[in-house]
Amino acid sequence: MSKRSAPPTARVGLVGAGQLARMSHQAAIGLGVQVVALGSAADSAAGAAGARLIEGSGHDAGDLRALAEAVDVVSYEIEHVDLDALEALAQEGVVVRPHPRVMRLAADKAHARAEFVRLGFPVPDHTLVDDAQQLAAAGDTLGWPLVLKTPTGGYDGRGVWVCDDLAEATGVLEQVGRTMLAERLVAIDREIAVIVARRPGGQVATFPVLRTYQEDGICREVVAAAGDAEPAAVALAERLAEAVGLEGLMAVELFDEGGELLICELALRPHNTGHLSIDGCVTSQFEQHLRAVLDWPLGDPALVAPAAAMVNVLGPADGGDPARGLPDALAVPGAHVHLYGKAPAAGRKLGHVNATGPDPDTALATARAAAEALA
Amino acid sequence: MSKRSAPPTARVGLVGAGQLARMSHQAAIGLGVQVVALGSAADSAAGAAGARLIEGSGHDAGDLRALAEAVDVVSYEIEHVDLDALEALAQEGVVVRPHPRVMRLAADKAHARAEFVRLGFPVPDHTLVDDAQQLAAAGDTLGWPLVLKTPTGGYDGRGVWVCDDLAEATGVLEQVGRTMLAERLVAIDREIAVIVARRPGGQVATFPVLRTYQEDGICREVVAAAGDAEPAAVALAERLAEAVGLEGLMAVELFDEGGELLICELALRPHNTGHLSIDGCVTSQFEQHLRAVLDWPLGDPALVAPAAAMVNVLGPADGGDPARGLPDALAVPGAHVHLYGKAPAAGRKLGHVNATGPDPDTALATARAAAEALA
Repeated sequence: MSKRSAPPTARVGLVGAGQLARMSHQAAIGLGVQVVALGSAADSAAGAAGARLIEGSGHDAGDLRALAEAVDVVSYEIEHVDLDALEALAQEGVVVRPHPRVMRLAADKAHARAEFVRLGFPVPDHTLVDDAQQLAAAGDTLGWPLVLKTPTGGYDGRGVWVCDDLAEATGVLEQVGRTMLAERLVAIDREIAVIVARRPGGQVATFPVLRTYQEDGICREVVAAAGDAEPAAVALAERLAEAVGLEGLMAVELFDEGGELLICELALRPHNTGHLSIDGCVTSQFEQHLRAVLDWPLGDPALVAPAAAMVNVLGPADGGDPARGLPDALAVPGAHVHLYGKAPAAGRKLGHVNATGPDPDTALATARAAAEALA
Repeated sequence: MSKRSAPPTARVGLVGAGQLARMSHQAAIGLGVQVVALGSAADSAAGAAGARLIEGSGHDAGDLRALAEAVDVVSYEIEHVDLDALEALAQEGVVVRPHPRVMRLAADKAHARAEFVRLGFPVPDHTLVDDAQQLAAAGDTLGWPLVLKTPTGGYDGRGVWVCDDLAEATGVLEQVGRTMLAERLVAIDREIAVIVARRPGGQVATFPVLRTYQEDGICREVVAAAGDAEPAAVALAERLAEAVGLEGLMAVELFDEGGELLICELALRPHNTGHLSIDGCVTSQFEQHLRAVLDWPLGDPALVAPAAAMVNVLGPADGGDPARGLPDALAVPGAHVHLYGKAPAAGRKLGHVNATGPDPDTALATARAAAEALA
């Protein structure tokens, strides 16, 4: 009997080494896949879980090349990376999935809005603004209040302002000091997300529609119910995956305004709204992402129960570690705790709790009870 | 925001670094627990998955001490270790769970048989034999054919012989050259296993009864059905956990002979028969083991579907790597593939496939289809 280990079946590089890479690594273990994460060794949630870490930055072309040389396929856990460098690597023949060209749809909201319009997908009315005069014109067209967004670099509610009037909006624009996206304030009835996986050959699998609840722009709770087929949302996400040539995983965040669906934004990687799939679906979004970028058959994304829920665990205001409440959280029957091993800080995403149940309210109550024990 | 990672919530040492430690590490990630495995770096399934590895042997007292110094609690993934050294560490105050005294019930079949009899638990009739004369007497009492077992060191069918007559048995005894356990050949109607977890404080949680199918002494397939309550088997396992003072996880393998249950053997750690719990139960046996030895509230062991099944993936006769069939296995809807990252060899346990379903046959058919793709 050989005394060497078997080589991994495949090596997937992820730009970024946070909690998404951590959970990708966890999912990769069963497949015999090696996840190699590019990030900082300090405070790497993926490294702490034993993923192979390449120390470096997704903004450094040399570090991206080092990652590419260590793996079979390069993918992402974040979009704020040097996409020009990745595009150059792709031109050299490195397999990068999704293609950096597609990844720009997640990295640049202005570019994405233009592409969605070009491809015939519904988005909120919007325009780009550089100065007070353009802002005034935008206000006349889009109405007040209106929403100002930085086209790049925002996340978890950062880079988004709802402005009541021209004076407030002008102040934000001056403070930010660069071109911004001005957008009609949508009268949101519901926020939902659809996560779809697509292989290079075209096979598509779509997770159950996710109802998402945000607070201060941060995802706090998500539920899914097997009964909510929502064919319009699923069809929109699948058409978009096809239209952009997705190779990997895509989360489409949608506003429902009086029954009309509008694209809010895209993520082209595993997404916070899909965490309930770890315990709530036959195949988790993390395993599905690996399958898709490796061009392997996609897994069944169906729920394993009538409903599933997720509640995020944010760092408590006192800066304490939610893990101090772990035994109490584990005492909640049916709660699945996922901690990220990150240094605690107030408001920081440090973990989440999943649960399933006979209906969304019951699943949510279970997840909340455990999440509260971690607060 | 701090740039250091949060420390793990707890560190669990495992003596052994194979696939059980690998899957323990995978389960530990969500809890923020660090698994530290003691074993050889070469061919360590746990190390390949990113568990922290202490290079050394479970037979070396110094290595066991090094493990103890790195963790909050010492536990096991194998029983063939230096239990005297662990007992000495426990006397010094090291937390070792289960206690090495209890672990001897898994390591020494002769000792275990004597203990079960003393505690009033049912076992097949048996006696110890040292020579042909004692063998002849055992044959008169127990009948022919009879079973000879080495009291220590056997696993996966090794160390067990079914002997048709005195001549054959004498040959085995001479070849083995040490005291053996002679046992009546049980007319097995069914083989089942019950996995029970018990916290130091006494909380007990028992997994659904597992129907196991062996071939050449190696576990090949396991099914569980929510309808099979089997109160007698569950009660026996729970009484035994209490009687031996279990702190951790215990798998009780039972023979069913005409409706009478007899203890075949014990494992005091996660067990091959419990692998279906990863995808088939609310809480996996690996997470449950961690909870139990950390004295944390136990999780719900119930099935998430009416039935669940597991099929082992053994190395094919040609010595090839089952992972070559991975894409085909992933094409089977609902199959959950678990590869161990071990060097392939014919007959070696290299992975398993789990599935759930509306009934045991359907679940088993799914798992078999994927396992066959990996053969």
